[in-house]
Amino acid sequence: MTRVINWCVVMLVLSNARLFLENLLRYGVLADPTQVIPLFLKDPYSWPAMCLLIVSNVFILVALYTERQLSKGSFSELVGFLLHCINMAVMLTFPAAVVLLVPSVTPVGGAVVLGTYTILLLKLYSYKDVNLWCREMSTQKAKKLARSLSCEQQVCYPGNLTLKDIYYFTFAPTLCYELNFPRSPNIRMSFMFRRLFEMLFFTQLLVGLTQQWMIPVIQSSMKPLEDMDLSRMTERLLRLAVPNHLLWLLFFYWFFHSSLNFTAELLRFGDRQFYKDWWNSETVTYFWQNWNIPVHKWCIRHFYKPLLRKGFSKMVSQSAVFFLSAFFHEYLVSVPLRMFRLWAFMGMMAQLPLAWFVGRFLRGNYGNAAVWLSLIIGQPIAVLMYVHDYYVLNYGQETN
Amino acid sequence: MTRVINWCVVMLVLSNARLFLENLLRYGVLADPTQVIPLFLKDPYSWPAMCLLIVSNVFILVALYTERQLSKGSFSELVGFLLHCINMAVMLTFPAAVVLLVPSVTPVGGAVVLGTYTILLLKLYSYKDVNLWCREMSTQKAKKLARSLSCEQQVCYPGNLTLKDIYYFTFAPTLCYELNFPRSPNIRMSFMFRRLFEMLFFTQLLVGLTQQWMIPVIQSSMKPLEDMDLSRMTERLLRLAVPNHLLWLLFFYWFFHSSLNFTAELLRFGDRQFYKDWWNSETVTYFWQNWNIPVHKWCIRHFYKPLLRKGFSKMVSQSAVFFLSAFFHEYLVSVPLRMFRLWAFMGMMAQLPLAWFVGRFLRGNYGNAAVWLSLIIGQPIAVLMYVHDYYVLNYGQETN
Repeated sequence: MTRVINWCVVMLVLSNARLFLENLLRYGVLADPTQVIPLFLKDPYSWPAMCLLIVSNVFILVALYTERQLSKGSFSELVGFLLHCINMAVMLTFPAAVVLLVPSVTPVGGAVVLGTYTILLLKLYSYKDVNLWCREMSTQKAKKLARSLSCEQQVCYPGNLTLKDIYYFTFAPTLCYELNFPRSPNIRMSFMFRRLFEMLFFTQLLVGLTQQWMIPVIQSSMKPLEDMDLSRMTERLLRLAVPNHLLWLLFFYWFFHSSLNFTAELLRFGDRQFYKDWWNSETVTYFWQNWNIPVHKWCIRHFYKPLLRKGFSKMVSQSAVFFLSAFFHEYLVSVPLRMFRLWAFMGMMAQLPLAWFVGRFLRGNYGNAAVWLSLIIGQPIAVLMYVHDYYVLNYGQETN
Repeated sequence: MTRVINWCVVMLVLSNARLFLENLLRYGVLADPTQVIPLFLKDPYSWPAMCLLIVSNVFILVALYTERQLSKGSFSELVGFLLHCINMAVMLTFPAAVVLLVPSVTPVGGAVVLGTYTILLLKLYSYKDVNLWCREMSTQKAKKLARSLSCEQQVCYPGNLTLKDIYYFTFAPTLCYELNFPRSPNIRMSFMFRRLFEMLFFTQLLVGLTQQWMIPVIQSSMKPLEDMDLSRMTERLLRLAVPNHLLWLLFFYWFFHSSLNFTAELLRFGDRQFYKDWWNSETVTYFWQNWNIPVHKWCIRHFYKPLLRKGFSKMVSQSAVFFLSAFFHEYLVSVPLRMFRLWAFMGMMAQLPLAWFVGRFLRGNYGNAAVWLSLIIGQPIAVLMYVHDYYVLNYGQETN
């Protein structure tokens, strides 16, 4: 088997060295880190994305204020629930409205803002839930949550309702609130700086490869897509698949290994399980359960299990999780691009029949190959569809 | 490990599907089996290659006649030895002279003729040796060869010196003569027809892929090679490496599995070890010892061991084998192309320092990867060098 790998690796390295050389000969050096700035800034005197990020603190404070009033009994549970709902509804709609209506927000800036707001929304939802469970527990309910809420020489409810605590949670690399997070005893400097170095290096690499490899392929795909030339479209799609997949792998390492570990080390955050062995997935379900552990844990704790407790079946609850995920995928793509095409939504919802098909007909190695294939081919299809529609919509102003 | 293979296979299949589609879109369908005919025939009324193949029977008959006279004692050993030497010297020089001097011999036709003559030369050398050993044994020498020369209900020397026997040996898929070859009891029809089908199918595939994939790449490499544009030359070399390697693998299967097994089945020839597991080679030496077993066996039996018996060291004998192999590689390439560049000779001789280097510094998996790399990269370097020189030499007449 290792012989086959040797052969495959030699062939892949040579093939891609050739593509790299061909790319350099055809386009010259396109990588230029300074070109990243206009992606965030259209008008250098107006920083709408930055303003939105500063405003996000308001929602954190509202959530903390609401919980404090609830803990003192100043608000009834209903009033608190309504306040939280309004707070979160505004978090979802207000930045989206700003991104849609303020013309100086760029797509990349918009995506960063909406991503940050979405993460914060999930965190504050968890914050609300856990504090509610604490109050319920003090009335002898929800004993199963004893571990994370137990009170031996640790912070007890309502002692956790401090500014320091909620801001630690805001920056901690998790979406699930706990009163007493596991903490590491000290900061390992060499580990932290290695992760920092990786973050900086992979940022440069991601930007450079996107400029040098992705963008020329995408640009050369516009003509075949407009003409609906099927064979050329397929060729461009397969051409895009390799750099797209490589960038996704690099992004995965950059975000889930380097960045989250760096943050965790800096904050002495003890729980480092940010991903599991999704590369061994033999089913689509296993992939979605293991590639993004923070989101997976949140979905299980605050969405899937509550649904089960309310009496919904596993099937319905699982579908609901995919539906929620599909909604946020669409939200994070459509709003920054200012166009609603439902490709991202349908892409996520298509995971349900795909998961059924792979689980039903392909097992073991074939299942694994099918997961890889859907990863490698599925993403560039979505990328090409959105980029194409974006170019067509903004043809007059955007292309030159 | 199988997960890594899955990923590699998916990536390789997608990459090459893309290349295949790009090739079709750029060049259209170039494969055309009728274009094979002009490779063999320049002038449809003159078939010099075919004539040479018919003439080769003369050398078989001379060898048989010489051995018969030797067995009867009509010729002394010295006269017989000289006759064999003259016969083989003419076999080496006469077809080469015809290929060089007759302008209607095409490079492909010339290569086929010289290849056939070389195989026949090796066979007749073995024939001469074994018959000599038989005579020596009858004077109580060379007892070690007892197995192949033993005489129980089988053919004994000089009963083997018949026209039927020497022609069976001529067509049998081996280079080492034996008085009594191992034979299979009957012809397995389904096995034979499967091999025949493979032969026909892979012939078509080899021709089609060469026309569709190799030739456009080689043609587009001529300009960078003339300009000595190093980066573009490297890009073309890597571009050529993939189809060249695939064609070599197909050729290997076509010749060593399909064709030799078909011939063996048809002739009820029992010894089917035409190749061993060269793909597991961890050293260059192992590769050369295992990829072409008929030639390897001949070299050991009629060249390496006789040299050892004459008192040469293993090192010297091994180098002599590589030297002989280098001579024939050069002979089979330079003469049909009518140009002497020594690339093939030096390519084979370079195996000696390469074998030393890989054996000394790279072991196990790294050695295996090095063997693959030298196979995948070494061949297209030689191909490009010869094709380039051939085009430059025949520029006025050959290119259009």
